[in-house]
Amino acid sequence: MTDGDFGLLSPVTASPAVTALTGDRAVIAAILDVEAAWAAVLEESGLAPEGSAAVVAEAADPGHYDIAAIAERAQGGGNPVIPLLGELRARVRSLDTDGVGAAKAVHTSLTSQDVLDTALMLLAGRTVSALLVEVKGTTTALATLAAQHADTLCVGRSLTQHALPYTFGLKAAQWFNAVAAAARRLESLELPVQFGGAGGTLASGSKLTAGSSATPFTLADSLAAKLGLAPAAAPWHTSRLAVTGLGDSLASLLDAFGKIAADVVFLSRPEVGELGEPLAAGRGVSSAMPQKQNPVLSVLIRSAALQAPALTSQLHLAAATFNDERPDGAWHTEWPAQRRLLALALGAAGHLRELTEGLRVFPEAMRRNLETSGPLLLSEGVTAAVAPLLGEDGKQRLQAVVDQTLQAPASQQADTYRKLLREAVPPATLPDAELDALLDPASYLGEAAEISRRIIAAYPEFIASTKGTTRG
Amino acid sequence: MTDGDFGLLSPVTASPAVTALTGDRAVIAAILDVEAAWAAVLEESGLAPEGSAAVVAEAADPGHYDIAAIAERAQGGGNPVIPLLGELRARVRSLDTDGVGAAKAVHTSLTSQDVLDTALMLLAGRTVSALLVEVKGTTTALATLAAQHADTLCVGRSLTQHALPYTFGLKAAQWFNAVAAAARRLESLELPVQFGGAGGTLASGSKLTAGSSATPFTLADSLAAKLGLAPAAAPWHTSRLAVTGLGDSLASLLDAFGKIAADVVFLSRPEVGELGEPLAAGRGVSSAMPQKQNPVLSVLIRSAALQAPALTSQLHLAAATFNDERPDGAWHTEWPAQRRLLALALGAAGHLRELTEGLRVFPEAMRRNLETSGPLLLSEGVTAAVAPLLGEDGKQRLQAVVDQTLQAPASQQADTYRKLLREAVPPATLPDAELDALLDPASYLGEAAEISRRIIAAYPEFIASTKGTTRG
Amino acid sequence: MTDGDFGLLSPVTASPAVTALTGDRAVIAAILDVEAAWAAVLEESGLAPEGSAAVVAEAADPGHYDIAAIAERAQGGGNPVIPLLGELRARVRSLDTDGVGAAKAVHTSLTSQDVLDTALMLLAGRTVSALLVEVKGTTTALATLAAQHADTLCVGRSLTQHALPYTFGLKAAQWFNAVAAAARRLESLELPVQFGGAGGTLASGSKLTAGSSATPFTLADSLAAKLGLAPAAAPWHTSRLAVTGLGDSLASLLDAFGKIAADVVFLSRPEVGELGEPLAAGRGVSSAMPQKQNPVLSVLIRSAALQAPALTSQLHLAAATFNDERPDGAWHTEWPAQRRLLALALGAAGHLRELTEGLRVFPEAMRRNLETSGPLLLSEGVTAAVAPLLGEDGKQRLQAVVDQTLQAPASQQADTYRKLLREAVPPATLPDAELDALLDPASYLGEAAEISRRIIAAYPEFIASTKGTTRG
Amino acid sequence: MTDGDFGLLSPVTASPAVTALTGDRAVIAAILDVEAAWAAVLEESGLAPEGSAAVVAEAADPGHYDIAAIAERAQGGGNPVIPLLGELRARVRSLDTDGVGAAKAVHTSLTSQDVLDTALMLLAGRTVSALLVEVKGTTTALATLAAQHADTLCVGRSLTQHALPYTFGLKAAQWFNAVAAAARRLESLELPVQFGGAGGTLASGSKLTAGSSATPFTLADSLAAKLGLAPAAAPWHTSRLAVTGLGDSLASLLDAFGKIAADVVFLSRPEVGELGEPLAAGRGVSSAMPQKQNPVLSVLIRSAALQAPALTSQLHLAAATFNDERPDGAWHTEWPAQRRLLALALGAAGHLRELTEGLRVFPEAMRRNLETSGPLLLSEGVTAAVAPLLGEDGKQRLQAVVDQTLQAPASQQADTYRKLLREAVPPATLPDAELDALLDPASYLGEAAEISRRIIAAYPEFIASTKGTTRG
Repeated sequence: MTDGDFGLLSPVTASPAVTALTGDRAVIAAILDVEAAWAAVLEESGLAPEGSAAVVAEAADPGHYDIAAIAERAQGGGNPVIPLLGELRARVRSLDTDGVGAAKAVHTSLTSQDVLDTALMLLAGRTVSALLVEVKGTTTALATLAAQHADTLCVGRSLTQHALPYTFGLKAAQWFNAVAAAARRLESLELPVQFGGAGGTLASGSKLTAGSSATPFTLADSLAAKLGLAPAAAPWHTSRLAVTGLGDSLASLLDAFGKIAADVVFLSRPEVGELGEPLAAGRGVSSAMPQKQNPVLSVLIRSAALQAPALTSQLHLAAATFNDERPDGAWHTEWPAQRRLLALALGAAGHLRELTEGLRVFPEAMRRNLETSGPLLLSEGVTAAVAPLLGEDGKQRLQAVVDQTLQAPASQQADTYRKLLREAVPPATLPDAELDALLDPASYLGEAAEISRRIIAAYPEFIASTKGTTRG
Repeated sequence: MTDGDFGLLSPVTASPAVTALTGDRAVIAAILDVEAAWAAVLEESGLAPEGSAAVVAEAADPGHYDIAAIAERAQGGGNPVIPLLGELRARVRSLDTDGVGAAKAVHTSLTSQDVLDTALMLLAGRTVSALLVEVKGTTTALATLAAQHADTLCVGRSLTQHALPYTFGLKAAQWFNAVAAAARRLESLELPVQFGGAGGTLASGSKLTAGSSATPFTLADSLAAKLGLAPAAAPWHTSRLAVTGLGDSLASLLDAFGKIAADVVFLSRPEVGELGEPLAAGRGVSSAMPQKQNPVLSVLIRSAALQAPALTSQLHLAAATFNDERPDGAWHTEWPAQRRLLALALGAAGHLRELTEGLRVFPEAMRRNLETSGPLLLSEGVTAAVAPLLGEDGKQRLQAVVDQTLQAPASQQADTYRKLLREAVPPATLPDAELDALLDPASYLGEAAEISRRIIAAYPEFIASTKGTTRG
Repeated sequence: MTDGDFGLLSPVTASPAVTALTGDRAVIAAILDVEAAWAAVLEESGLAPEGSAAVVAEAADPGHYDIAAIAERAQGGGNPVIPLLGELRARVRSLDTDGVGAAKAVHTSLTSQDVLDTALMLLAGRTVSALLVEVKGTTTALATLAAQHADTLCVGRSLTQHALPYTFGLKAAQWFNAVAAAARRLESLELPVQFGGAGGTLASGSKLTAGSSATPFTLADSLAAKLGLAPAAAPWHTSRLAVTGLGDSLASLLDAFGKIAADVVFLSRPEVGELGEPLAAGRGVSSAMPQKQNPVLSVLIRSAALQAPALTSQLHLAAATFNDERPDGAWHTEWPAQRRLLALALGAAGHLRELTEGLRVFPEAMRRNLETSGPLLLSEGVTAAVAPLLGEDGKQRLQAVVDQTLQAPASQQADTYRKLLREAVPPATLPDAELDALLDPASYLGEAAEISRRIIAAYPEFIASTKGTTRG
Repeated sequence: MTDGDFGLLSPVTASPAVTALTGDRAVIAAILDVEAAWAAVLEESGLAPEGSAAVVAEAADPGHYDIAAIAERAQGGGNPVIPLLGELRARVRSLDTDGVGAAKAVHTSLTSQDVLDTALMLLAGRTVSALLVEVKGTTTALATLAAQHADTLCVGRSLTQHALPYTFGLKAAQWFNAVAAAARRLESLELPVQFGGAGGTLASGSKLTAGSSATPFTLADSLAAKLGLAPAAAPWHTSRLAVTGLGDSLASLLDAFGKIAADVVFLSRPEVGELGEPLAAGRGVSSAMPQKQNPVLSVLIRSAALQAPALTSQLHLAAATFNDERPDGAWHTEWPAQRRLLALALGAAGHLRELTEGLRVFPEAMRRNLETSGPLLLSEGVTAAVAPLLGEDGKQRLQAVVDQTLQAPASQQADTYRKLLREAVPPATLPDAELDALLDPASYLGEAAEISRRIIAAYPEFIASTKGTTRG
């Protein structure tokens, strides 16, 4: 008995939902779907016997094929289509009890690359559809967080240090921004059908359609339509932009996921405490350490994001070394990389949806951390407002105020700074209320709210309008 | 004196044209251009003193700055904008002889990331423009080759072996296909301006524009317009799709270049002899071996293509770990990777243009290699045409013909195959002329010509219509 | 029912032998072996009840665990040890019918990372052992080829062009060189046991051993001895050189494999014909094209070699971001990369052994290709020998001879070159026999034989001395 | 005038010290040193005219060569040796005023790859020597920190959460562990000389030495000795383990650096405050935000560590595609990757030395953060010690204590936990003093001190014994 890989060393993808769409059975199913659709196209064009498509469709039930055995035999020809075809043809013949000659509809005028390229695009399309459902759950949750926390003060951080007042709403909006922009690009991708025949000239297809009203191009268009793929103006056997473009888009989406996870693992640390992952029975718990709640969702998402860059480089390397009309190794390296990117993106998307839909936000901790930095966090704004009131050497005088403040103990810096400023500018010039406003972090948020609004407004299709989009 | 890197270990980019657009001086120039444009935007909006933009523009001459010294001092703050700003401000003050207060127009409300992100987009835009000129030279040359060699027979190869008759015209068209598709994507990229201020909230810009008719958003749009960049709906400090998208597009273009180079290095081997690189004095010559003509252009292009995948993975890794409002290392890894991708693409594009414009094509060698494989190269088509004439067991009978042919010496296979076929099908069923046609490789080219036509037709903007587009 | 991955999209690893050593069941088995060995160590040290090790050993039969279910549950804690432990403990309790308290021997004082790090080293050790058997088959075959073809002339190629006479024996020796050097490094690797406890301080182990003659360090050494792993002076939870070193060594071995495959795919092309892969029923055959024999073994090996670089970069990235005492995602990215490298290396090693043991060598084609370049291939040596005989301007005069020769048709260059040389140097100075020797490629092989001898002599352990090492 | 790259976009390497060892002038110098050493070897063996080595040595002054011009001309032949040789020969002739025929000693019997491979190994050796000085400064500093803080309590963190009590001394020791292990591997690397001649057969060298007491192998050994490189048993033109091994070792060292930087960027965050980078004028300061002190050293080190993995994958990719006797692109991709890795490692090593020698450690903050997690951080140890005192259901009863404690407010958990434990176990069974000891984090440090001792003891050569090793 052959054992397989069930995701034991890849927890982020180890869910039945991911396996159902990207596992070996899904590959077999996609290959069989391509052959069945092709049989239908041929029959509809009068190029295969009447009734043959139905037989092929019946034979194309993936449940009847021994995946492990086909995988092992794929070593012989270097691809899985060859051994699968042998079994499919045998099955078609055995099911063709009426003798319609259904075998003539199987794989006619196709080459392995036509089938595998098309099947992997089909598998990609199915996975991307499921992925986008998860993503829209995430973006909807993020838009909600952006709205709910439009006024939730926190600190903006740069090179690990406190920079300026910020809002958690804007942080959620920027997370949304990255995810929605990458997802829109993914959604707009065209996943094309492949049809070129053995050498990429459509020679066999040309002979096949000679004298009929069809051409190889109309057959390819019909196949695309039947499978829900994009038509292709020409074979793209050696021009792999469809593959690298898919990989790049998936990697970009995982980049956006990874950025969120990187923030959450930090913000949910005990020393920070601004966020918490949603709690669930059995998740993130350590047997020996009862106080420990690991941010497992973020860790898994992050593990996926850290794997995507190398995988996308693998696809580009294949494209850059795709020699001849079919290459001597490069093509074979695309398959596992493309499939793995799909699995990582889908797996991470599910975890991210759960994370964002249940994210626990702690505004008090955000406020507390903001205040850690004391009043000098506002000095950029104070200087801009007050220096002009002080004449020529305003900037220098305010720098002296800052320097003096920094010498006070942290707990007294707020009072010291206010007192020194008050001494520097008389109330007549800067009334107390205005000074207090300058020292209020909420007054130095700039366009945080407007930026959030613009971001969310730019991606209306990524916000579920009804409550009905709950998770399946 | 500090020594620099002049490309000694990177021959593919070691041209003055590449350095002029992507070298350190170009970076300094782009940063200064951003500051000068910003000063102009502020002055036009009434937010900087009249006359200040002119002073800043004068100060922004990159020739006045000591690159090596600035680079060394960039270690202090971790980026080159900080030391350059110090020098720019000093220079502005010294040039501000009329005392208009031009220093107030320098960097006001900006942060280093605003300037560096924008400057690198500007540098990218300039490089991509030059790159596309080279690419259009290449695509024009390839379209010409596709037309000239529409009927030039060669062999199509798959997994290194001879597969089917092909045309060199279609090969050139498929090369065109890959390059044009990637270049179109690159050309359509939006390279956005960055403006977010210190923490990404536009706080300082918001204060600056308070009471004026401007807003931080209108200032950003004006800056974009002035620099020829795309406007940005919101700051993208932490959402790096603009950077990864640029990298992915450059890598995809280099993939297409690499595929061509991989083919040319093989097709110009002495054993194959189908192509030759253009000859030029001093190129590809070996001092010790006078008979040797190395395909240096292809080798250099290939060396660039093999480096791109790792660089694009670097950009994705940065994006995936872009924590906080500005990250703790990831941003710094983008700069050299982005610049290197631009340089590799530009360098390789120049070499590829020279290669394709001067490619030497040897149709006789193509024909000779095609004939190496003998008549069985056509057996797919022969079988499809003849089997139906032979009744039920037609395929089996033809397989026997093939097997018998394979037992003849290579030089006699053509005659043997024809003789056996003639014996199998009487002339009444298949006239001699038709049989000869089946055995003519030119008759089994399928849609080669139509595929080429479709490919070229899909990218009209990549074919120079006039003779005027010769290389500068 | 959960479907797994059986290698359908990775033909190079899709063999039962690879799966048996690197599949999910092998991972489970390794984890259980670690726990069982640990129980034995504890019992032997008097730290677990007598009889407990036997119960744990019985429970540690991997056949009893549902891999897919454990993989799915690994999402909860982020690693597979946690759910597996739950099941192991339950099974131990149910098997502990004598009530010896065997559960106390399970995982005591260990942490998940101890178990998983150790288990993956164990799995690596087992896979590397099997791999080295294949490699020694390969190196033995290469050494035999080096000896058999010590005098088989071929052409040495540089930047695709013919450079100088060479021997196929030296080529085989250089292949041997790369494989043996990488394999020796792999064989010398220390694969260490991991034991640090929950936080890496051995706190629990320290309490456990207090008062006994054991220490946590002696327990760790015993565990290492029992599992055949190297002892570790200290926990290496956060210092991942053992993991990256393994990855680098596997990648280096795959580099050597890839170099061979790159040569074979070229040398077995129809235009070259110097080598042929071993023939086997059902391998490399194309259904539509009977004349086609794809070099499938090389293509698969090459596909593995092209995937290794990205995987080894993944391991370094993990090591470089291994923050805290256990990191927030990096560790999780190691597992699939390490396992995949092992599988690729083992899969490719099997194919390479078959390739090298059955490689078909065609000396006549080698000779024919060598002669393609004509006599000028020898001009480096001719010039060195003849110029001194011609006086001051010897080099210039010989260059003129070369130039004149190049103007003759290729088929006449040999005669022309000889005639011109004969005219330039009188037989009195250079007897005919000496001139002929200079024009014989076999006379310009330099130290080819001695280089081969040195290479083979440097790696005696990589040559099977007896005939008994045939493939299992 | 051609502009170069001075490190403007790579602050981590933008120091004169790095440029001096890895810049283009250093490459030119290394190439010239190889040619000069070779001339000396030839003269000493009687294979070049007496006096020629002195002339070549004089000509080999790198200051006389126009780097930018040579770099540009390197495009012609695809490598920098060819144009440099032209200039070197011209210079040798002009300096050979005595007419000794020194030009005969230049490059005789060598090929470009011999020179460039050897020169890059020489450059690597020089850079690694400088690097190891910095590294030993770092390891010495870390060993000192490990000793000084052997008893400094902090918290050990796992998946971002608090795990167990730890010491800062052990953290420093583990940092030392990773750096010293990687550095030892780097220090033990053999950097071999290359000598194979044009095709790798030593044909020209064989003719040259015929009749003398020298052989090509003795010449190569002499060259190695003169340059301080390792001898090579055979040419390694196509077997790139020396190059990938160097790259892997540099990447491994950068991994260790990156791990430290990842920890420091976190531990010096305002919310954590356990560490501070050394202060220096002008470093880490932000003009607008006076309170901000960026951890620039760590950020730069981290930026280097994040770039190394992709570079090492580049070297493996080259090795895996190194076809023929010299490849068609792969070799060219090694050069920039190898040089960049050297520069990143050296640049980062300097910053890391400064960081570790001046690291500010704040034990009070460490203690405060440790206490954040409350007494339950110790529950693993408490359970292990107390459960046996409670009989059969000890573990369950203690779990109830933990659960009850978790319901108290954080500030009261310490008291609550103690009280509940006291109720559960009478003082007669567990005296107060013992209970207090169990609740003291300092009592649950396990083997922290012994682990540190073992680590430091394992690498005596990485600790400077005298005070004299201060930075140059």
